[in-house]
Amino acid sequence: MQVAIAGASGYAGGELLRLLLSHPQVTVAAATSERSFGQPVHMLHPNLRGRTDLQFIRLQDLPKVDVLFVAFPHGQVAPRIEQFASVAERIVDLSADFRLRRASDYTRWYEWEHPAPVWLNKFVYGLPELHREELRDARYASGVGCNATVLNLALWPLYRAKLVEMTVSEVKVGSSEGGNEATPASHHPERSHVVRSYAPTTHRHLAELEQELGFGDKPNIHLSLTSVELVRGALGTSHCFLRQNLQERDIWKLYREAYANEPFIRIVKVRRGIYRYPEPKILAGSNYCDIGFELEEGSNRLVVISALDNLMKGAAGTAVQAMNVMCGFPETMGLDFPGLHPI
Amino acid sequence: MQVAIAGASGYAGGELLRLLLSHPQVTVAAATSERSFGQPVHMLHPNLRGRTDLQFIRLQDLPKVDVLFVAFPHGQVAPRIEQFASVAERIVDLSADFRLRRASDYTRWYEWEHPAPVWLNKFVYGLPELHREELRDARYASGVGCNATVLNLALWPLYRAKLVEMTVSEVKVGSSEGGNEATPASHHPERSHVVRSYAPTTHRHLAELEQELGFGDKPNIHLSLTSVELVRGALGTSHCFLRQNLQERDIWKLYREAYANEPFIRIVKVRRGIYRYPEPKILAGSNYCDIGFELEEGSNRLVVISALDNLMKGAAGTAVQAMNVMCGFPETMGLDFPGLHPI
Amino acid sequence: MQVAIAGASGYAGGELLRLLLSHPQVTVAAATSERSFGQPVHMLHPNLRGRTDLQFIRLQDLPKVDVLFVAFPHGQVAPRIEQFASVAERIVDLSADFRLRRASDYTRWYEWEHPAPVWLNKFVYGLPELHREELRDARYASGVGCNATVLNLALWPLYRAKLVEMTVSEVKVGSSEGGNEATPASHHPERSHVVRSYAPTTHRHLAELEQELGFGDKPNIHLSLTSVELVRGALGTSHCFLRQNLQERDIWKLYREAYANEPFIRIVKVRRGIYRYPEPKILAGSNYCDIGFELEEGSNRLVVISALDNLMKGAAGTAVQAMNVMCGFPETMGLDFPGLHPI
Amino acid sequence: MQVAIAGASGYAGGELLRLLLSHPQVTVAAATSERSFGQPVHMLHPNLRGRTDLQFIRLQDLPKVDVLFVAFPHGQVAPRIEQFASVAERIVDLSADFRLRRASDYTRWYEWEHPAPVWLNKFVYGLPELHREELRDARYASGVGCNATVLNLALWPLYRAKLVEMTVSEVKVGSSEGGNEATPASHHPERSHVVRSYAPTTHRHLAELEQELGFGDKPNIHLSLTSVELVRGALGTSHCFLRQNLQERDIWKLYREAYANEPFIRIVKVRRGIYRYPEPKILAGSNYCDIGFELEEGSNRLVVISALDNLMKGAAGTAVQAMNVMCGFPETMGLDFPGLHPI
Repeated sequence: MQVAIAGASGYAGGELLRLLLSHPQVTVAAATSERSFGQPVHMLHPNLRGRTDLQFIRLQDLPKVDVLFVAFPHGQVAPRIEQFASVAERIVDLSADFRLRRASDYTRWYEWEHPAPVWLNKFVYGLPELHREELRDARYASGVGCNATVLNLALWPLYRAKLVEMTVSEVKVGSSEGGNEATPASHHPERSHVVRSYAPTTHRHLAELEQELGFGDKPNIHLSLTSVELVRGALGTSHCFLRQNLQERDIWKLYREAYANEPFIRIVKVRRGIYRYPEPKILAGSNYCDIGFELEEGSNRLVVISALDNLMKGAAGTAVQAMNVMCGFPETMGLDFPGLHPI
Repeated sequence: MQVAIAGASGYAGGELLRLLLSHPQVTVAAATSERSFGQPVHMLHPNLRGRTDLQFIRLQDLPKVDVLFVAFPHGQVAPRIEQFASVAERIVDLSADFRLRRASDYTRWYEWEHPAPVWLNKFVYGLPELHREELRDARYASGVGCNATVLNLALWPLYRAKLVEMTVSEVKVGSSEGGNEATPASHHPERSHVVRSYAPTTHRHLAELEQELGFGDKPNIHLSLTSVELVRGALGTSHCFLRQNLQERDIWKLYREAYANEPFIRIVKVRRGIYRYPEPKILAGSNYCDIGFELEEGSNRLVVISALDNLMKGAAGTAVQAMNVMCGFPETMGLDFPGLHPI
Repeated sequence: MQVAIAGASGYAGGELLRLLLSHPQVTVAAATSERSFGQPVHMLHPNLRGRTDLQFIRLQDLPKVDVLFVAFPHGQVAPRIEQFASVAERIVDLSADFRLRRASDYTRWYEWEHPAPVWLNKFVYGLPELHREELRDARYASGVGCNATVLNLALWPLYRAKLVEMTVSEVKVGSSEGGNEATPASHHPERSHVVRSYAPTTHRHLAELEQELGFGDKPNIHLSLTSVELVRGALGTSHCFLRQNLQERDIWKLYREAYANEPFIRIVKVRRGIYRYPEPKILAGSNYCDIGFELEEGSNRLVVISALDNLMKGAAGTAVQAMNVMCGFPETMGLDFPGLHPI
Repeated sequence: MQVAIAGASGYAGGELLRLLLSHPQVTVAAATSERSFGQPVHMLHPNLRGRTDLQFIRLQDLPKVDVLFVAFPHGQVAPRIEQFASVAERIVDLSADFRLRRASDYTRWYEWEHPAPVWLNKFVYGLPELHREELRDARYASGVGCNATVLNLALWPLYRAKLVEMTVSEVKVGSSEGGNEATPASHHPERSHVVRSYAPTTHRHLAELEQELGFGDKPNIHLSLTSVELVRGALGTSHCFLRQNLQERDIWKLYREAYANEPFIRIVKVRRGIYRYPEPKILAGSNYCDIGFELEEGSNRLVVISALDNLMKGAAGTAVQAMNVMCGFPETMGLDFPGLHPI
């Protein structure tokens, strides 16, 4: 099968290249970059040196392919969606442009009049754990927000069971989440060793939480984001105030029922050792989302801890997983790297 | 004035040495370490190389001094309190042994039968911002918990005004908080670049929050701690759910009234630039606690962000500040290092 | 084919497990740890959670296997070599115990009377790039020193051509090189952000340089090691003073002739971009050794820069590569992870 | 005494502000920034929040002062030197524009026709350890290169004694050395955890080494620079090949004779403990240059290890020290911060 990546110069694009070049069922036919066309892809993605002779081409030269991955910045996919659809039977779009079902949500969260609202319902939210069946028949899958995903996967079993009154979620994120453009805030002397509140009260990814965790109600979720010293990775800490008193074994049961057969979700909760709860440190390059929890004694607070690699399960990994589902490949194909320890 | 440090081999002890050796009004007469006696203090505190010829002595050789700082591990001060009181008119104890007013709190939080309960009321909780007047007349001041302090200072104006229904607080901490003993979890390959939940639902420092923020009620605070890649520093993120709707200017007023004259508290909330909220990164070595906040639109959540250096404002800095108050020295004496940028 | 790992609790052992569990031609029959027997291997190697149910067994319970990997500490393999040889047709030993050909070198460099000198010549130095043909027929392959390897691969084409008068080599290394035992120097607050000279004038790995780069003479190499803030990775900077004036194209030719067909060596020397020379940053988890160089204008100094992951090409990766050669598998089998960017 | 800083928005300018605001003998009358004039200085230097109300002014509004510090980029001071000299009796220039004595050296090393060569001999190279007597009478002092200083101080006693045949020096540097402008290479995901060769064979600071270490001959020094994960700090490792065999005690004697009375140089060479050799880690914010050494057994190689904070002893600290000498203040005034441990 032939695949291509439109907008392959960024970090998610590079990660797609890494995954797809090793995927047994696909051939990467093209990767576009308007700024770097003509250059070998390993100039921007130095880990691919010696792995491919592929060079960036212009978007206008994109060949017809079976699956097109789009890794453009937000807001730049929807205006070109007809063009993209004309070159590929199937599209997996990593941007935010088709993640939300309602055009009005784009007005509200992105302050943006969606230019192709008729396309919104053609896309399936591309998180197989929540939309596997719809993805099997889908031609178009959206990307997922990395912060949204680390929380959606952690909270979904609880919200589906309508157990949660209110949640305060904090996500700690690494610097790759900001993309590959240098800014004053990403300058190493300024970004190094921060514990920096960058969105204390709101973040656009909340839109994806409200959409995916609704189950009839608007979920009551309060979100904060903090940058930490890390390149890859996100840790979600969700303080869920439950409607009823539950025991630890009830929570175990709930998560097991939800995720026992999920190849990329691991319940991490052990009594001994250093890695007793999920940690992004050991997930770099892997497609896992690890989930753990602890009940507060004497209260209705359940702390759910979740970790993933924002470029993998939070972006390119889930995109390839979605393609696997859409194309009928084994779901873990090309995504079997377990992560490194120590690192 | 002559001062001494009992238990000067640890990180807080080293920081006390650094501060007191430069303090214009005191002379460091002695520093004890049972394990390293006879060695120059700069063997363990290499930043003091060339600054002092002081050598560690044994506790049994401690001379009489005007002020004794005690930087022993928790649980090891109370059994020796009579001995310490016999060598010094005034004591500033950095351990947890005299922070709590009620012996029963030690049973509950430390699972420890306090061996000298009669002494508990002789000690003043050594945080000048909350207990300045009592400290002026005190002979004995306790230390403060670093995590407790980053939250107590952030929350005190709100709880004093009885504005808060419930708080979820997350503290992100550096590795120096764990002391100077190597453990499997502090081994560099394992501790490097963690975002590690180490106390998701409870921590002993909550006892100090409940004690200092009570104002007649038991404050409803839920606490989580997460280790991040940082040696020095703590960031508190407190999600306060308010009993009434407040505007940003109300919050400003509240904090200004509480802290306008405090030399070590800065309200940090600016619209531009990289450092818009408090950050521990630029506080290493300084005695500041920076505090900022953001109100969530459309809800009663107020996010209060606070930062400090756990070894300074969270330990040795506040201890020296307490001594300054107790001895009638200018409160900022010896504590004027502003911190570094970049770092 | 059945393989086992004796001493699988350390970092090299964990990396062997990661590689061998995914290797298409082998089954991991057993992994031993005297301290952790009975525990699942993922307790110590948390990246393997969900990947295997394997538990550590005792050395005494080691089954017969086709290939035995030994990842014991130095000095603990030679005394047990007969025992190891009795359970496996082939052995790949990662320790230093069989790297040197002459027993007298152990006396000199390790201050150790080798207990099984007769075995020294049964072992082939396990670096396929230098000893591929001997490895094809070998039953026993030694491990390689990580610092030795990052220099041996960089210098071998030059020394083989007898071009070098004298070399000053500096290796900058990460913390995983020290193994998984916590020490005062590896305690995170002390190890974090070091640029620490730990072996300014000598290091045992020099023995492997002298052995492999001799070509009739004792090579004149001066070695220094410096620890830097990194978990995985080593960068070698070798200042080679050449016997004759060479042009850049001569050096290119030399390296191309030596390594053009090597699957794990990449010559990295580009004019533009951020990654113009080899860097360990992008090699974590990969088996590459990247090599680059620069000639000093107006002198006979050639700076050769080489980078690798000390746990991979510097230890477990090369060990698996050696097994592939010994067993007739494709040399890159199980070693195709390209590394991550950014990280 | 009134001082001003022309070009105070950069890292060295911020460090000058930090030092001069606390200096007992001076008042900071003005700080200029063309880009940020009108803003409080703490917007760019957040550690100074609450310490000063000073705002940046335009260069054209610079008042007359007693001492003017110039922290402009290289090449931008010389064209304005008459203007600067008209507002201040004394100038300390941190740029490279007046470090070299010969205009021809600027042509060679900076590929730049010096626009004010007549001024070159009015300036004294501003390193008090090497030029104290000249500085006492000087009106104009140049800055020093940070990489040059970490090597000049390490090598000067040896070169003065004409003991060295040849030196290979490697300097490992932090990211603040590159200034405060964000670039693709300084973007956190790219700069984080590098061990990156950025000047393998040459660097302009070599000009300062040749000038200061000449003693009649051109010193034979080969220089390489490597970026490491660090914000502040530089470590120099100099491999000196000596003309004669010396014992360790000879080297001790040499350094003691040279530096025994130097307030900012410490000879660091101890047998035990973690900090046996100089390390930049514990020098952040201090004005020390720590120097240590080790003789290689059986060769004429002496490894000299030197460390400093590139923004302090390598820039602003030495500039203030030079001012102290020029103005007759105690040399350590305002420079007594010992550095932090741990950090």
